[in-house]
Amino acid sequence: MDYMTDMARMCAEARAGAAALQAAGEEGRTRALKAMAQAIRAASADILAANAREVEAARQKGADKAFADRLTLDEERLNAVADGVATIAEQDDPVGVEKRRWTRPNGLEIAEVSIPLGVIGVIFESRPNVAADAAALCVRAGNGVILRGGSEAAGTTQEIVKAVRTGLAEAGLPEGTVQTPPDAGRGWVTALLALDEGGADLVIPRGGKPLIAHVREHAKVPVLSHLDGICHVYVDARADARKAIDIVLDSKMRRTGVCNAAETLLIDRACASDLLPRLARALEEKGCELRGDEAARSIVPSMNAASEEDWDTEYLDAILSVRVVDGADAAMDHIARHGSGHTEVIVTEDETTAQRMISGIDAAVIMHNASSAFSDGGEFGYGGEIGIATGRLHARGPVGAAQLTTNKYVVHGEGQIRG
Amino acid sequence: MDYMTDMARMCAEARAGAAALQAAGEEGRTRALKAMAQAIRAASADILAANAREVEAARQKGADKAFADRLTLDEERLNAVADGVATIAEQDDPVGVEKRRWTRPNGLEIAEVSIPLGVIGVIFESRPNVAADAAALCVRAGNGVILRGGSEAAGTTQEIVKAVRTGLAEAGLPEGTVQTPPDAGRGWVTALLALDEGGADLVIPRGGKPLIAHVREHAKVPVLSHLDGICHVYVDARADARKAIDIVLDSKMRRTGVCNAAETLLIDRACASDLLPRLARALEEKGCELRGDEAARSIVPSMNAASEEDWDTEYLDAILSVRVVDGADAAMDHIARHGSGHTEVIVTEDETTAQRMISGIDAAVIMHNASSAFSDGGEFGYGGEIGIATGRLHARGPVGAAQLTTNKYVVHGEGQIRG
Repeated sequence: MDYMTDMARMCAEARAGAAALQAAGEEGRTRALKAMAQAIRAASADILAANAREVEAARQKGADKAFADRLTLDEERLNAVADGVATIAEQDDPVGVEKRRWTRPNGLEIAEVSIPLGVIGVIFESRPNVAADAAALCVRAGNGVILRGGSEAAGTTQEIVKAVRTGLAEAGLPEGTVQTPPDAGRGWVTALLALDEGGADLVIPRGGKPLIAHVREHAKVPVLSHLDGICHVYVDARADARKAIDIVLDSKMRRTGVCNAAETLLIDRACASDLLPRLARALEEKGCELRGDEAARSIVPSMNAASEEDWDTEYLDAILSVRVVDGADAAMDHIARHGSGHTEVIVTEDETTAQRMISGIDAAVIMHNASSAFSDGGEFGYGGEIGIATGRLHARGPVGAAQLTTNKYVVHGEGQIRG
Repeated sequence: MDYMTDMARMCAEARAGAAALQAAGEEGRTRALKAMAQAIRAASADILAANAREVEAARQKGADKAFADRLTLDEERLNAVADGVATIAEQDDPVGVEKRRWTRPNGLEIAEVSIPLGVIGVIFESRPNVAADAAALCVRAGNGVILRGGSEAAGTTQEIVKAVRTGLAEAGLPEGTVQTPPDAGRGWVTALLALDEGGADLVIPRGGKPLIAHVREHAKVPVLSHLDGICHVYVDARADARKAIDIVLDSKMRRTGVCNAAETLLIDRACASDLLPRLARALEEKGCELRGDEAARSIVPSMNAASEEDWDTEYLDAILSVRVVDGADAAMDHIARHGSGHTEVIVTEDETTAQRMISGIDAAVIMHNASSAFSDGGEFGYGGEIGIATGRLHARGPVGAAQLTTNKYVVHGEGQIRG
């Protein structure tokens, strides 16, 4: 198989589809998304059957529980997937939005208008719902998309893409807008990353660190991705104790394997002796291992000892490192040294401290008195997310349809020349 | 010399300077820019002396007139450089701008706020004014900057950077915010492009195609650049003849060596026999060579014949390819095949045609009844430009201070958890 040639053809078809989406306007894109949601519901028996076969195959190969869980779709989950697509159908259309307009002294009128990015490649692993989310967000923004899922979920992905394409066709738009390779060969990934002319305008990897590292290393096209999610919760002396406990528990233990989960608790020395024992008890009751610095262990002796390495570790597990710090400045200093720029949480009732930390911390998302778990496209109201970007270019933070656009400048004159 | 270590140190100093700029706020950045403009004026004798030596050296090495002209600063040009910095001091500050704010059903309040990008590397060639423009735009947006100019202008660049740093110091801000390597060794470019951790957040090459190709090929950091500028002027049957002639002349002949100069004239068959002879005469009087397709040459036999290659050629010279097309759709088709997405000009009095072409053409800048020469940061009102981006990610079109920012999301809650 000639992966490069076939991938170029898929990208060209996706691009033609994007042109049709743009011509169809907001109304056409909304109609397409509604039809996609409907088609996913109509195809649920086929999708679930394909998924059941793949979950069974993964189990027989000895996949662990977490992996099998990520792979699994059931009726409820598939309904949620279709609901997500339907929600995206209701979202504001991000295309054709006039972001700015100004007039120059010479009378030229300049407008900055959002337009689709073009063709987006999405490389994901075992969560088949990503196929539907990504397709819907791309269609909302008028883009074509190449979906390349992990081999374990290849059959489920094929069925979802089939349904999505059926929806597009029913709405009178080109099926080719949404593409997936015919098999799970690694050559498709290689081709997608290598095609810099006539290929994707942007590639988004969604999955574990090895996948993201591979994509970043090999891509000749721009990549939007997240690196580490070393997220901190800082509990200030002026924190509300109840909020602090709720937020720390939710940030750490709601789901431990996700990038927006907290990995380090920074607690103000001024409240540590009072609050840390209560926090530790609540976390330990939920099965969280604590690794503290000396000051933390002197207050809660049951903690294990943290090493220097712990401050730079994304556990993605029920482990939390704990450090006692001398107030907001020491917390900011720790975050500047060890944070990954993903999501940082400040718990305090003191507005001045909160404002100072919000200004001083450099991260994609800063939460004041809210759980890190809200650092998520769905929770931001995007109807889903295609990932979270931790780079500084193009988009930073949760990536929804609005971030899958670029701009053109439209300049109206009356014959002006520069002379 | 250990280029990598020294470049990492320069980037760290620039980053520390950026932090100080951010802490200094809008008022501090404005003060710094005013002092920089003042310091450039104060240092004009030193800058002009260094420049005169380099222009002389270039002449002795046999540099052509265009090259020597790009290299040359005189009192008037240096005044314009200082004026540009002073203009940027008056610009709206692009940092801390709240771009959006919305409230979620759970009460979370989310704001998207602009913040500085970080450290920007600018690699340029023989125009020494780029050093001052780039430094000013970076400081306006709260960024540190590494300026690496071409070897022929190394002495001039050193003097300009010295003045800029003096201005920063006089304003009480770190000199280290603006950096330039001590010499013109190629190793500095290599180091700047290779340093992906602890280096620049973005590199912007400014110069000819070989420079840009080199940077794009070797950079491990994100690059903002332009590729070709194959810009078209479409003259519609409903064009105003006077505007059409003015705009074609200005777009092509104002300066032929710049990326926003027109390379191809597309003229509607319906007005070609009337208008093309007048256009051709006006262009030929200015010394422009015309290369037409068969239909164009049947109207203006003095034209040379265009080959297929001409449609894909950026002449950067007093040459214009000319094609007769069957109206707006044929023009859009030609532009889709041969355009480079830089700047496209539509000349028509018909609003419907203009709107259809504005929607249908994919380019960074679309001019309706205005010269392509306005596709420029200064002309957009940015007080200068650090380049024009023709990629689709992050920024597209003229790049001013506002495009040298990224965002953070600030989320305010009252103890919300996802549960």
